Amino acid sequence: MKLLTIAVDAMGGDHGPDVVVPASLQALATHPDLRLILVGDESLLQKKIRQFRGALSDRLMIQHASQCVAMDESPATALRGKKDSSMRVSINLVKERRAEACVSAGNTGALMATARFVLKTLPGIDRPAIISTFPTITGARVRILDLGANVESTPEYLLQFAVMGSVLVSATENIPSPRVSVLNIGHEDIKGNELVRATSQLLTTTGIVNYTGYIEADHLFRGTTDVVVCDGFVGNVALKTTEGVAILIKNTLKREFNRNIFTKLAGLIALPVLKAVGRFMNPDLYNGATFIGLKGIVVKSHGGASIAAFARALEEARFQAEKNIQQRISDKVEQLLKNTSIGKAD
Amino acid sequence: MKLLTIAVDAMGGDHGPDVVVPASLQALATHPDLRLILVGDESLLQKKIRQFRGALSDRLMIQHASQCVAMDESPATALRGKKDSSMRVSINLVKERRAEACVSAGNTGALMATARFVLKTLPGIDRPAIISTFPTITGARVRILDLGANVESTPEYLLQFAVMGSVLVSATENIPSPRVSVLNIGHEDIKGNELVRATSQLLTTTGIVNYTGYIEADHLFRGTTDVVVCDGFVGNVALKTTEGVAILIKNTLKREFNRNIFTKLAGLIALPVLKAVGRFMNPDLYNGATFIGLKGIVVKSHGGASIAAFARALEEARFQAEKNIQQRISDKVEQLLKNTSIGKAD
Repeated sequence: MKLLTIAVDAMGGDHGPDVVVPASLQALATHPDLRLILVGDESLLQKKIRQFRGALSDRLMIQHASQCVAMDESPATALRGKKDSSMRVSINLVKERRAEACVSAGNTGALMATARFVLKTLPGIDRPAIISTFPTITGARVRILDLGANVESTPEYLLQFAVMGSVLVSATENIPSPRVSVLNIGHEDIKGNELVRATSQLLTTTGIVNYTGYIEADHLFRGTTDVVVCDGFVGNVALKTTEGVAILIKNTLKREFNRNIFTKLAGLIALPVLKAVGRFMNPDLYNGATFIGLKGIVVKSHGGASIAAFARALEEARFQAEKNIQQRISDKVEQLLKNTSIGKAD
Repeated sequence: MKLLTIAVDAMGGDHGPDVVVPASLQALATHPDLRLILVGDESLLQKKIRQFRGALSDRLMIQHASQCVAMDESPATALRGKKDSSMRVSINLVKERRAEACVSAGNTGALMATARFVLKTLPGIDRPAIISTFPTITGARVRILDLGANVESTPEYLLQFAVMGSVLVSATENIPSPRVSVLNIGHEDIKGNELVRATSQLLTTTGIVNYTGYIEADHLFRGTTDVVVCDGFVGNVALKTTEGVAILIKNTLKREFNRNIFTKLAGLIALPVLKAVGRFMNPDLYNGATFIGLKGIVVKSHGGASIAAFARALEEARFQAEKNIQQRISDKVEQLLKNTSIGKAD
């Protein structure tokens, strides 16, 4: 059996090794083809592995790294001053082909800056983007990008995002020609700002993906499209609004069920159903955003991820490594972009 | 008793007079100080008023208008070709001071273009914005603007939005110095695009409102701020994402409660609580976005508004007319902007 090796930033995230180590042990138990290299303070990690009843083996190794990137550290400081951070060393392992992917719950800005600096973008891609998966009412899933890597996008970036998203969905969901939409504030041609209009024009004239037109944000979760592209500022606002509304609704449900003895009883009876809803909506299930467009697979876990959620991010990285997603994207992007003048020469 | 007169575009929205007429009769029954001028096809409106068991009086009048603006009509066509539309005539009544406010469920783009053309902006205000109210987990409400009037905002526009939002909240909620935040994708100073950074700088240096810094979209509904300003593209995405998530969760709850006989029973028992949650989250409760920054009060109802929701929009207009909001805003904006070089000369 061919082993898939993933480098894991064991010090990143709000909880560091207390989440990363048990999640790693869990993923190793689930996937016999998985090998993990935990990157971080060696003696601390040894202690934590023992504490969580694990043991080093040829499938669980430690790579020492003497530094940590703080969650509020600026990307520039992390890049310049933390050359032996667990984050940087994890990415280095991917660059050196000692790992097929890496996973970090560390600070997004620093991770993106470091990944971009160390790995570089794929030929034909100007900027990496952050892509993640969301549930829809049909049970199908939708991918949205960019979720925050670029805050001043051009139509060319968005075209490249469309191609990358389309290739990713095509490879992971077995959809030959995924539907691609541009996030806008109306569906008529005249709606929106210059960026979305120029992007729509570009997607139409190049015919490079199955472009199905504009989508409004209230239709993001209707299952009517497979890939949604937008500027990173807008995508990040949509992503975080989703979290904000989910919290508001959860909170309101809690308050109303706690109102009196009758509503509490009703809540007790409805609890299994509410838990099922919670499971479906649980962001942990969708944890693991991918930095797409780099010469290497980098999966970003939510900083506050639980053990289950971090294990989910490891699954995502394992799956992408298994499916050789990065190479597929690289091949197809190159091939697709050959026919257009879009994208930089490399 | 001084009567407050509101012009009502009776032909606008997905349902036209079938929603507007009963909602108007309901509002008149609730508020003895309200006078409504229904604008639209006179004979049709007479018929509808009879149908809903109402009668013309000195508090319920009809102003004939021979045209209607279609829901998908372009703002330019509506502006040029529909000079006797129910929408245009309603706004004219405000301009001519025959009404203190107007309400329309018609097409947003056409309503904004017409309102701007007929009423003009207040002195010191470059662009009107769309502002609306949202629930939060604390029970307090938050106002967000711009929700879609301007898709290429400048820091100066956002500063003006901040001032207008602050004045509106101060007058309606009796908060002397409302907290104002700028929507961003992080709370650190280095985060965001040029627009938000320049806006933040401007709000800090002018000290014109109680500026409390950046807010991320997952904190919009936490009750930690009173006014949130953003570009109209971003605000519209946040608004519609809210709707999209609410639909997704509602749909998931329905599906899970319908899974089998036991979950259906649980649903039946939990129904009163779920209905209470639905009422709290119901967008109808918050129906009635205001076009702020114009020389006149224009309230925009959701196109698909129910009778209750349209009545809510009428309440909003009545309240703003009663509180003389537009004049207060005008006064304060003028006074506040006198001390800065921001805003155009008028």
